[in-house]
Amino acid sequence: MATNYKDASPEEINKAMEQSWQAFHIYRKYSLSQRADFMRAIASELENSTDEMVKVAMSETNLPEPRLKNEFTRTQFQLKSYAAACEEGSWLEARIDTAIPDRNPPKPDIRKMLVPLGTVVVFGASNFPFAYSTAGGDTACAFAAGCPVVVKAHPAHAQTSELVAQAILRAAKKLNMPEGIFAHIHGASSAVGQSLVMHSRTKAVGFTGSYIGGKALFDWANQRKEPIPVFAEMGSINPVFLLPGKLKDSTQDIVKMYAGSITLSTGQFCTNPGLIVGVEGEELQNFITSLGNEIKKIAPTTMLHPGIAKSYNQNRSNALSQEEVITVAVSETAVKENQGSPTIASASAHAFLNNPVLHQEVFGPYSIVIRCKDLIEMRAVATHLEGQLTSTLMATTEDIRNNEDLVESIKNICGRLILNGVPTGVEVCLSMQHGGPFPATTDSRFTSVGADGIKRFARPLAFQNWNDELLPDELKNSNPTGIWRTVNDDFTKNKIS
Amino acid sequence: MATNYKDASPEEINKAMEQSWQAFHIYRKYSLSQRADFMRAIASELENSTDEMVKVAMSETNLPEPRLKNEFTRTQFQLKSYAAACEEGSWLEARIDTAIPDRNPPKPDIRKMLVPLGTVVVFGASNFPFAYSTAGGDTACAFAAGCPVVVKAHPAHAQTSELVAQAILRAAKKLNMPEGIFAHIHGASSAVGQSLVMHSRTKAVGFTGSYIGGKALFDWANQRKEPIPVFAEMGSINPVFLLPGKLKDSTQDIVKMYAGSITLSTGQFCTNPGLIVGVEGEELQNFITSLGNEIKKIAPTTMLHPGIAKSYNQNRSNALSQEEVITVAVSETAVKENQGSPTIASASAHAFLNNPVLHQEVFGPYSIVIRCKDLIEMRAVATHLEGQLTSTLMATTEDIRNNEDLVESIKNICGRLILNGVPTGVEVCLSMQHGGPFPATTDSRFTSVGADGIKRFARPLAFQNWNDELLPDELKNSNPTGIWRTVNDDFTKNKIS
Repeated sequence: MATNYKDASPEEINKAMEQSWQAFHIYRKYSLSQRADFMRAIASELENSTDEMVKVAMSETNLPEPRLKNEFTRTQFQLKSYAAACEEGSWLEARIDTAIPDRNPPKPDIRKMLVPLGTVVVFGASNFPFAYSTAGGDTACAFAAGCPVVVKAHPAHAQTSELVAQAILRAAKKLNMPEGIFAHIHGASSAVGQSLVMHSRTKAVGFTGSYIGGKALFDWANQRKEPIPVFAEMGSINPVFLLPGKLKDSTQDIVKMYAGSITLSTGQFCTNPGLIVGVEGEELQNFITSLGNEIKKIAPTTMLHPGIAKSYNQNRSNALSQEEVITVAVSETAVKENQGSPTIASASAHAFLNNPVLHQEVFGPYSIVIRCKDLIEMRAVATHLEGQLTSTLMATTEDIRNNEDLVESIKNICGRLILNGVPTGVEVCLSMQHGGPFPATTDSRFTSVGADGIKRFARPLAFQNWNDELLPDELKNSNPTGIWRTVNDDFTKNKIS
Repeated sequence: MATNYKDASPEEINKAMEQSWQAFHIYRKYSLSQRADFMRAIASELENSTDEMVKVAMSETNLPEPRLKNEFTRTQFQLKSYAAACEEGSWLEARIDTAIPDRNPPKPDIRKMLVPLGTVVVFGASNFPFAYSTAGGDTACAFAAGCPVVVKAHPAHAQTSELVAQAILRAAKKLNMPEGIFAHIHGASSAVGQSLVMHSRTKAVGFTGSYIGGKALFDWANQRKEPIPVFAEMGSINPVFLLPGKLKDSTQDIVKMYAGSITLSTGQFCTNPGLIVGVEGEELQNFITSLGNEIKKIAPTTMLHPGIAKSYNQNRSNALSQEEVITVAVSETAVKENQGSPTIASASAHAFLNNPVLHQEVFGPYSIVIRCKDLIEMRAVATHLEGQLTSTLMATTEDIRNNEDLVESIKNICGRLILNGVPTGVEVCLSMQHGGPFPATTDSRFTSVGADGIKRFARPLAFQNWNDELLPDELKNSNPTGIWRTVNDDFTKNKIS
């Protein structure tokens, strides 16, 4: 991928990491409000540069202006809403057990809260130049947790990344943040990423992108002398299960909904529905034919960059050439350079269960419809699927009630389970889970969207037998920051008398 | 290590894992109260077998009866207190954001809670045959989370483990738990452990023991096609920092306290204080001499098994033979076979900083006192230390106030920070953190003691756009289980109207 920026040298990387280590010692002591102010200042710097940033991002990603403007607003919303969550403080999981001196043996006073891990290295996504990149969710969560951030710019939108980095640095300067709180590293070669992950000052990694990229970071992190946590969100095929009752009731509605979801943003979402599973029969045939007819009418659009367009065409051809795979429909509009042509395939469950190639993500406007003999075979598909960010059930209440085992199996493979909707569209709110069993992510116990994502970058520290005056404010008897705490097993905001 | 039990065959391992997978589908749907009842039934079965189990454990571990009786009571307390926490339900982290249909675009209803990962394989510790073994903290946390458990019996107390396993199986039978909810696997060879960790049905691992053992499990787990989380608690040297004011005020009190802590249970605790750091001078010399005099008077005691006694003597000799290391004191009572002789060494900070051998745990009644030129060198020791379960400050309020940077550096390396106490003694309560930065554990974001340990074995699952009647009880509008939830960013037990 072309970039006008030189790869950072080992010396530059080392300097950034050592400065971030110095900054960590200062920033980790900052109050929750100080961290939140910094995050809000970044949001404000971004807002002031909307036109320039969106324009540059358009030129680098081929994404249309309304889509990028939405994403840009979302990025500011993330920073502001995670700032509010940071200040609210319940993510600290403050737990207090007061002393019982006359117990035998005496019970000590113990108080625990989350503290930051240290410098977080963030790798942005090609498909979200703002919301999952330089000042995106990972960066916002790390700052809230009390961690400095070093971003490895995505080479496909390096200039956008540079502008966003400058906005972060302006906010840092205005708020007198410690030098090294944020650094921006360019690098088109994987050696730069490897150096960042392997550096001894790096304490955690956030990544959004391909399986190959994320798994490489995960392996490097675990090969370190001191392994570190990596949260890599590596995509998903987001299976959609069409249950018979619902399919019968709403074939045409489902077709409309899914023709849109499959092709939204040229299918370049990690929650794109790449697999649709139904039971053989007249309804499913109608569904396949109608979905194909809709897809044929949708014009191809330009993909993020030539590399992604090339991968899409290769992966799609590979999938379509597998034994027993039928090409149902391809967009009837001629394809221009670097465009992705909307495509629907179909195969039997038998073929799917026996061919791992069909389980792989085809990143772009592509989906394959799997035909099962019956609901037992549909459950076999669910239990054989790898981990997913999302699964979707198109089902009536009756369908759900009559297929408890199937529904349980589908629950077991995903991080978010949608009923009668589409997986595209990831709401930014506390209840969101954007994560899932491997290979959707490297650790299903965390999320990269929503304020719970802060916890990826923090760890508990217990203080035993400390004088009240020496404790962090969040753990003092008087609860001066007014946060929710668990005191002797009770949730409360009360002082301890 | 001798055991009367044959290593499990690959077929036996596979059968246990496949049965646990079947059990998972049933047990994961059990209510929190059903899980808690099962845990309480195990505690009750243990209580009914106290005399037999303690007797067998005494013969296998050489630990004295009062120590084992305490540990046995603690094990039942863990099961009962984690059962209470399981039922209370706030560990589920229920988060609800209700729909806003008239927003543009409409905001969907999203509700999230923790669900179990799947079968957990537990490896018990040699030094805690009850509390960190077969029905110990890891097993209790896994059952609370909704996971079946497969225990790999520790060969050094295989018969104790067998008795405890039978008690768990009796409780499972009485409460009509699904077959496969618990399995007990014998194996003296590491091949058995490796097969368990590599089995595709294993979804998480809990371990307490040595660095070599824990790191091997961690590496196997990450080499799987589907990597899985391993929480391995691998021990620690638990540094104690003697600050000048406190040392001057209380030399003899600190000596008494630490002579006891270093030799408690023949030093066979993962929180044993193996490193004491002070500043050169008359007070530190007095401390070293007095500690040596106390240690000389303490008679050696028998260690857990011949292998541990042999390792203690080898590791101690190796440490004492390092350049610039002085042997301060060795117990003056003659040592019998398999006993560990209380020992104090000393070295300069310069020697310590330049010799990684001195950073290694000597598991047993041994501690080394490090002499720093000044408090700046003490901070250098703190920043060069690997991750620790605990650190301890012996300090006056003035000492803390005057050495903020030192205290911050010490906070940064440990999971629990004790002020003016000893690290031995791990209270079972919600505020406890028994974990710490690598190599103390493989993931500093979790704990193996306290009900927060349940979260090691659970992951969030979000339900989007589900009908109230189809949601799990914990997420229904009426909040029928009465748990704490975060509803539209507010903590509440209220119903949603």
